[in-house]
Amino acid sequence: MTEPSIYIGIDLGGTSIKMGLVDQQGHLIDWTEAPTRAREGYHKVSETMHAMAGNLLHHHGYAWHDCVGVGIGVPGFLDLPNGIIVESVNLGWKNIDLKKHLAQTWRVPVELDNDANVAALGEMWCGAGRDISDMLCLTIGTGIGGGVIINRDIYHGANGMAGEIGHVRVKERNARTCNCGRKGCLETEASATAIEQNALERAQQQPAGKLKEIYESSGTITAKQVIELARQGDADSRQIIEDVGQVLGRFLAEMSYLLNPELIVVGGGVSHAEDVLFQPLITTFKASALPRLTEKTSVVRAQLGNRAGMIGAAWLIHRKHTESSLRGRMNP
Amino acid sequence: MTEPSIYIGIDLGGTSIKMGLVDQQGHLIDWTEAPTRAREGYHKVSETMHAMAGNLLHHHGYAWHDCVGVGIGVPGFLDLPNGIIVESVNLGWKNIDLKKHLAQTWRVPVELDNDANVAALGEMWCGAGRDISDMLCLTIGTGIGGGVIINRDIYHGANGMAGEIGHVRVKERNARTCNCGRKGCLETEASATAIEQNALERAQQQPAGKLKEIYESSGTITAKQVIELARQGDADSRQIIEDVGQVLGRFLAEMSYLLNPELIVVGGGVSHAEDVLFQPLITTFKASALPRLTEKTSVVRAQLGNRAGMIGAAWLIHRKHTESSLRGRMNP
Repeated sequence: MTEPSIYIGIDLGGTSIKMGLVDQQGHLIDWTEAPTRAREGYHKVSETMHAMAGNLLHHHGYAWHDCVGVGIGVPGFLDLPNGIIVESVNLGWKNIDLKKHLAQTWRVPVELDNDANVAALGEMWCGAGRDISDMLCLTIGTGIGGGVIINRDIYHGANGMAGEIGHVRVKERNARTCNCGRKGCLETEASATAIEQNALERAQQQPAGKLKEIYESSGTITAKQVIELARQGDADSRQIIEDVGQVLGRFLAEMSYLLNPELIVVGGGVSHAEDVLFQPLITTFKASALPRLTEKTSVVRAQLGNRAGMIGAAWLIHRKHTESSLRGRMNP
Repeated sequence: MTEPSIYIGIDLGGTSIKMGLVDQQGHLIDWTEAPTRAREGYHKVSETMHAMAGNLLHHHGYAWHDCVGVGIGVPGFLDLPNGIIVESVNLGWKNIDLKKHLAQTWRVPVELDNDANVAALGEMWCGAGRDISDMLCLTIGTGIGGGVIINRDIYHGANGMAGEIGHVRVKERNARTCNCGRKGCLETEASATAIEQNALERAQQQPAGKLKEIYESSGTITAKQVIELARQGDADSRQIIEDVGQVLGRFLAEMSYLLNPELIVVGGGVSHAEDVLFQPLITTFKASALPRLTEKTSVVRAQLGNRAGMIGAAWLIHRKHTESSLRGRMNP
């Protein structure tokens, strides 16, 4: 029997399960997706994932014994040392002993981390941070998550909260109230949700314009629509995205005083706005701090899109595997 | 001849040179102090330091060949890989190749880092962070310096600017202009300088009070006087220190989103205000962030006072010495 050689990386989201087959170099060989249906409980979700994994392995000529292990990115707060989901608003789960459950029922090693951290690890392993030791990674979607990479590993801090930058206060005046109960959080000022709210406000206030047309025909506006309009040159939409870019640029400058990162990677749906977002973001970033602070820092777009989570989740197993092989060689 | 066993740690400040004899456990055996006279140039300062070191060694029965090396904490921006002082406002020096000069003329290994970083290393080695792997250390005096400790070493970032938190913007409204040209920097709102300015404003505005008495008799008020009055219960002075505590508490909460440190150590002259400062600081810190973020973080006063710099500077040599002994044992 040959050594197990393949990893499974899972991005377990509130809407869908994305599952990838990843090799030891971090290449995503294939992937599959299915609705999460978290309300049916974690036993059912575990069964769904197990069947998906079996099919994915089988389809590529692997059996379960070829699988080194399964890494999973989970939205929410985790008790990392024990692999417990303390609270996941997106999944509607509390205190779920997921790692133990999966390891026992699937009989393979299982590793968990939060979704923003695995996205950062994916970009580090095979994306924008491929050659970088230390970086800060932002994932901007409905909310804003962050991952801090130090010495080519995720940095967790005292209780796994390092990089949870969505609730840093970035605005004092005219600030929106956040889900967390505070005001002016990064998440309420620079996420897809913020873009949608800004677009709705503009559409309601203005006499005419593309945003108003969309709003009047459908009763709502999505961030994706605003981003598309901005890229096409619509002035209102551009302004909304540029404002977000400036908020992010100032925020990243402040954070740089603490970590002085070599690389900042910005991913998630909002990063699809490309230059409309990145040009004001980088200009504001450079203008908002001492020149010495930002001169060695690059700010770039994430490269892996929604594959980052699967690849980064697989890296959790890769790290464990490489460490134990190393120990094996050092203490034979 | 026995192996060299003793370290010299130097805190090279704008006003004085503090030099300590430190053993391999980080104990400060003895120390001495002299005026810096940086204006006379680095050759002269180097001679002064060499004579001080010779005396200190001799006084305790050591010769130069017993000295493993000299670590130095310097105020300002350094090119760390090359040991060059890029710019030190306090010393009035620019582009000084100090490490090379000292190593060549003194003929011992020399290591440099900035003053806030060596203070943090001192507290880590033998002070408040003795048993801690990761911490954030603030030194609050005329300015505000910071040091980030990760995995029992200083974290420098891309170009040595990590932890230079004095210029993070903490105030939008009614903010003072900083030396750096921006407004509302931590340093202009929470340093000894900020305390003095707040005290002067109060003294000028109010009809009576202790602060006004001091101001009228001497034409100025020092931070030390305000801190002393606050500790004695003077309401105006307490208010000034409490305001500073609140600014620091909010700032540290925001920074914790990025690093989630196990320990935050606050040192420097302003920390002598003790509970008058720490009580509002800690209360604001805990109230300014998600409970999960701060629940594992302790905020404590630095323990080593102005010895931290000397001990931390000696640690720079200790690290190098321990690493090379380790290499020696592994590759004999």
